[in-house]
Parts: sequence; structure tokens; C-alpha cells
Amino acid sequence: METVNQLLDSIKDVGRDAVRGGYSRAVYSTAELDLRSWFIEQATQRGLDVETDRNGIIWAWWGKPQDGALVTGSHLDSVPGGGAFDGPLGVASALAAVDLLKARGVQPRRSLAITAFPEEEGSRFGVACLGSRLLTGAIDVDKARNLRDGDGNTFADVARANGLDPRHIGPDPQALARIGDFVELHVEQGKGLGAGGPAIAVGSSILGHGRWKLSISGQGNHAGTTLMADRADPMVAAAQIIVAIRQAAARQPDARATVGRLIPVPGGTNVIASRVDMWLDARHPEDAVTARLIEAIHGRAQRVSAEEGCTVTLTEESYSGTVHFDPDLTRSISGMLPDAPLLATGAGHDAGVLAGFVPSAMLFVRNPSGISHSPEEHVTDEDAGAGAAALADVLAGLL
Amino acid sequence: METVNQLLDSIKDVGRDAVRGGYSRAVYSTAELDLRSWFIEQATQRGLDVETDRNGIIWAWWGKPQDGALVTGSHLDSVPGGGAFDGPLGVASALAAVDLLKARGVQPRRSLAITAFPEEEGSRFGVACLGSRLLTGAIDVDKARNLRDGDGNTFADVARANGLDPRHIGPDPQALARIGDFVELHVEQGKGLGAGGPAIAVGSSILGHGRWKLSISGQGNHAGTTLMADRADPMVAAAQIIVAIRQAAARQPDARATVGRLIPVPGGTNVIASRVDMWLDARHPEDAVTARLIEAIHGRAQRVSAEEGCTVTLTEESYSGTVHFDPDLTRSISGMLPDAPLLATGAGHDAGVLAGFVPSAMLFVRNPSGISHSPEEHVTDEDAGAGAAALADVLAGLL
Repeated sequence: METVNQLLDSIKDVGRDAVRGGYSRAVYSTAELDLRSWFIEQATQRGLDVETDRNGIIWAWWGKPQDGALVTGSHLDSVPGGGAFDGPLGVASALAAVDLLKARGVQPRRSLAITAFPEEEGSRFGVACLGSRLLTGAIDVDKARNLRDGDGNTFADVARANGLDPRHIGPDPQALARIGDFVELHVEQGKGLGAGGPAIAVGSSILGHGRWKLSISGQGNHAGTTLMADRADPMVAAAQIIVAIRQAAARQPDARATVGRLIPVPGGTNVIASRVDMWLDARHPEDAVTARLIEAIHGRAQRVSAEEGCTVTLTEESYSGTVHFDPDLTRSISGMLPDAPLLATGAGHDAGVLAGFVPSAMLFVRNPSGISHSPEEHVTDEDAGAGAAALADVLAGLL
Repeated sequence: METVNQLLDSIKDVGRDAVRGGYSRAVYSTAELDLRSWFIEQATQRGLDVETDRNGIIWAWWGKPQDGALVTGSHLDSVPGGGAFDGPLGVASALAAVDLLKARGVQPRRSLAITAFPEEEGSRFGVACLGSRLLTGAIDVDKARNLRDGDGNTFADVARANGLDPRHIGPDPQALARIGDFVELHVEQGKGLGAGGPAIAVGSSILGHGRWKLSISGQGNHAGTTLMADRADPMVAAAQIIVAIRQAAARQPDARATVGRLIPVPGGTNVIASRVDMWLDARHPEDAVTARLIEAIHGRAQRVSAEEGCTVTLTEESYSGTVHFDPDLTRSISGMLPDAPLLATGAGHDAGVLAGFVPSAMLFVRNPSGISHSPEEHVTDEDAGAGAAALADVLAGLL
């Protein structure tokens, strides 16, 4: 029997990023594969039966695999330079909760599975929650197979290299039918749980969110020999678009819009770029407002690009409307955790994808920094322990 | 005996960049090492004696190495996604010119060397003309040893891995004394030689130019959970700085300023960056004007960064004042090429670094696209042949 803090401590050196700080654990990188092995080993030590399904989702079963089981889990991959808790906290808490349930002598009335979903962050192939989207059919399989990472590898090729058959990835109704209820515990990623109050919240909803790629094409040329008046510099257009995105999002109540990834091509210091690729992450509770925001940004991007002699394309890479977690399940969980407030989140989660198909719910554990997707993300040992105990209470109540 | 076109044809598949187009031949990459081997082989086939000096500059001698020799050459490395001619045209033309001189039965009165300088573009270690700067002492040796490439390797380590002794890199007065006159042939990189006119120009001057790194630090965080009002997003500050750089350069006659390289850290789509590193390439004929431009940009960068809750640092990575080529040598060359106009260039060259120490001159070959540092850079076979012939005439006149 290990506590969640001991479990997290045992992976604290896996995938550290010396350049960015924090952790870089892209799906199917050495670091994420190490975490997958660690999870399988931990599950096996607990007598759980482990299987990896055709989408690369790991299932660790307490009891026989059966339809309508209780399922809990999260993900092991991270954003580049992410924190220690986003993902692994949910997996480690699930393992610790099983230990607690066994120590309490709980006799499950149905089977329990702990899952680890691949590519929740979309850091490598650009689509967040790829594993749960594949499982549920929320992404077109051909599109998924042809997703490419930054080195040009397709998801199909990477999946094959990691023991999956790319012909068989995609919707898996049998696996989905096994999820009677899904509960994901996750580090809170904002300032929703302040100091002095409760450390645990029950999720109410996930803000609608999507990703769009903007490609701005201009005329690559020499930085020294090309007069300012002769330029069609996509970096200048991209800069104006980023400023416009900030202004548009700031004007729209409850909207969030971010450009965190931008790649100039070819990317030389003494070279006017020929193209700039950048990605827009935008979120709002109402789909229609998000659509209008994207439309406004697209129009503005076209205008500033044309003024610079450039062209721009905008492509939606993924979109998920606002998700409200299952009201019955959420109410039931709130009853088991009377001190836990209901909390909406701006972050996407596999539980949000699954919520469209099976009753799903979330627990959030306090993050005193209010910062996530950053090395500064934090959970105290005490709160992590409280989270695992709360998850054990919830699982015991639902089993 | 091979023509310059045949020589260029024999390296046309080395270092092609499938992603960016054109060529990526960073110094000491496989591609550039292949070109170095090719050059050594070509020189050896011509009976030239080849030596690589302690700074990695290759010298191919026609005649015994001696002080005051006539030296011609260029570089083999490229910017990422560069053209086929920037660098290799000068080396290939020098080889072809030696063939022409031998065919003409020219009897040299002094020795001739063909040189290939490493890291002219500064694409890997950030300092352009690194080989000629080391040779002449125009860069501090400790600074050079500690330059790092994008993977974090120091120049000292990479030099060691390529057979150099990092303790012995740096000023080489013996090697420098061997250069009596230096002539570099290079593809023209702007629109200085139009269609219908002469294909060859004689260089008059190189615009003063430098590189500055701007690092903007903010608060990395989650793109979904962080309210717009709570952000300190260095990407937004960087975008405003890029717009300000364009405006400042456009207002200043004869100035050029470019941001072609920008790296958000950590660089995830759903992550507000914690830092953005970007590089400014700025050029102007007058050093004082460049200094005022950089000062203005720095001030503006500090203001917009502070408004965003970010901080910014600006560091000069390299600076070279405007260079006028040796007037006597240039006049003499113009006498040998009566149709060739005098042409100033905005691009930096090893000849510009050497000009501070030994009589140096340049020849430019027409580029009908007017585009360089891009796959679209071009030289017709006819103009390349005319360039090699002109170089042969000049070398014959100076030998």
C-alpha cells in the first residue's frame, strides 16, 4: 500500500525538461512510455488485470472486465514543460484509492477499472483527448491516422511503432459499454479553490474550447538585401493577428484566446520568413459566441495579411462544445463529499469527451499557485492525500 | 575540367530540406560535412594541397602556402531552407576558375588558395561569419567556445567532435598573413543586377548589420483556466514588439529590421508561454543610426512588456559596422571587368570581416529572382559561367 504522494514521488524524475523546466512527457515519448510501464507495474503489483486496448488506452481491472463497470483514471502525457500533477495525479490517486478501498475491506458490487488515456494534451499530434475521442468516435479515424507530429510522423506510424494496429484504431463500442460511470480526478488549473477553504471540488462543466491553425504565407527573402517597402513578411502579419486576438478576446466577456505555439518557416535570424504557422486556442461557454469570435479573428487576419501582401488560411483542428457533467452522478458525488463546492473549469479533459456518451464526473484538487501547464503547478501533499481519500469515498459509494 | 554548373550540379542533392524547401546545410551537419568532403575531393583532383586550419577553415593551395598569397572562396553552410547558390557558388566558381586559368596556361607569380569558411550564416551558433571572425580575432574566443546551438551543444564541443582542438581555435596571425588579397564571388541577394544588363558586379560596400536577442518573460499558465485579465503573456508583448520594429524600420530611410526567428517556451497550443525568445536582425549604413534604432526598439519593447506584466532583455549577439571594400583592389578589379557596375550589398560576408584586416573585394553574380535565403534564389547557368570566367579574369590579373 502506497500513498498518492509516494506514488508521485516514484515518478518525479521521469521526463524532466532541462530547458523549459517541469516535465515534457509527450505521448509515446520515452518519458510517457516509462510512465505507462510504471502504471502497468503498479497495477499488476495490486493484483489488477491490465490490458491495453486498440486505441492505446490502458485499463487496469479490479474484478473481471464487464459492461457497466465503474471507471476512474486520467492521463500520463504532459504539455511541453508542464507540471507534475496534470494527469498523473488522477492516475496515482486512483491507484491509492484502490489501496484505501482494499484496506477498508470494501467489497465491490461491480468491477472497477483504472484507465490511462493517451494524448490527452494534444501536445504531439495537435488534437487534445485523442484517446477518448478515438474510443467514442468523436474524431474521424482517417483524420486521426493522418495527424502528424512536429517531426512529420503520422499518428498511424507512431501507433504502429508502439504495438497498435492502425487499421483497428477508432470507435470501440465494446470498450465504451464497459464504462457504467466515469470519474476523473484532476489537479485544479485555476484559482477556483483558494487557501483556507475546501481542498476538493466536484466538476460542474467544461468550457467549450477548440484549436485553430493559422498559416500565413508571404515572401521568404534575405533580411539584409530586401527593402522594407518590398516585403511581404508573414511574421509582421502574424504579430498583428496576435494583437487582434488579444483585443477580441478581452472585449468578449468569459472568452479566452491564446497563441502559445508559433513556428516561423524557415526560422533563420537573417531570413524573412516565407510562412508562419500559429495555433489559436479559444474558449467560451457558448458555442455561438466562440464561432463569432473565430469569424471575427479570421476576418481581421485576412485584412492584415492582405495589407502585408500575405495570405492566410484558418483551419479548425478540434472543437468541443461546453460540457455539463452528468447531473445525477454529480449530485450523487456531491452527496458523498458535502464540503466540496461545484466548480466549472476552463480546461478540457477526457471526462468531457466521455460525458457525451456515458455518465461522467470530475473531482478537482486544489492548486495553490492557480497556475497549470507550467512547472509552477502545485498540489500540497496534504491536499493530494485528501484528493485520494475523497476519490476512495466516491468510488466506495458508487461501486 | 568541370564548369561551375557541372560542379554545382554534383551537389544539388546534398542537404535538401523536405519541409522548408531548398537546402538546410548548417555548419558541421551531415550535409555541410558532405560538402566539405566534396570540396576537398574536388581540390585534390585538381592537384591542390588541402589543409584545414585550427578554426575549421579549409584552404586548397595552388602553389606552396606562402605569405601574401591571392585567396578566393566563400562558404558551404546555408540558412535553414536556403538557396543553392549562397556560398557554394563562390567555392564552385573558384574551382572552375582554377580550371580556366590552367587551361589558359596562366603561370602564377604568387600562390593561390581557395578557402571555405565555416558558419558564415550563423544559422547554427548565432554568430554570422564565425570562421573569419575567429581567424581575425573579431570575436572573443571564450564567447565563441561557449556559443550554443539549438540543441544546447557548445561550439567548443561541436568543434572537438569535428576534429578541432577547442583550446586552439581563435586568432591565427600566420594564416591571416597568407592572405595578400581576398576576393569572394557571391550570388547577388537583391535586385541590384536586372535583366538585360551586366550579369556581374564588383562589390563596393556591405551595410552595417547586427543581431540582437530579445527575451520576453511572463507567466506561463493554462490557456483555458486563466482569465484574459489575469495574464502576463509574453507572446502578446512579442507581437507588439514585432509591429513596433516594423514601424521603426519603415520610418528610418535605408534601415532594415527583421524578426525571422521566434521561439515561444514551452510552445504548447493550450499553454500561455512563460517566455518568448526572438531575434532581431537590423541594418543601416551608419552605425549611429543603427544604435539609435536599437535603443528606440528597446525602449518600446520595455514599455509594451511592462504593460503586459512581462519583462524584456535585449542582448547584442553580433555587430559589424558598414564595410567599404579596399579601394585600390576594387579599382583594379573594376579595370579588369569594365562592364561590371559597382554594387553595395545589404548582406554580410566573410569578405566583409576580412576587409578590416587584409585587402578584400567581392564579385556578385546576377540573381534574377532578387530573392535569397529562400529556395527561390536563382542564378542562370549562363550567368554562373560568366561569373566563373570573370573570377578567372580577376585572379589572372592579380596573380
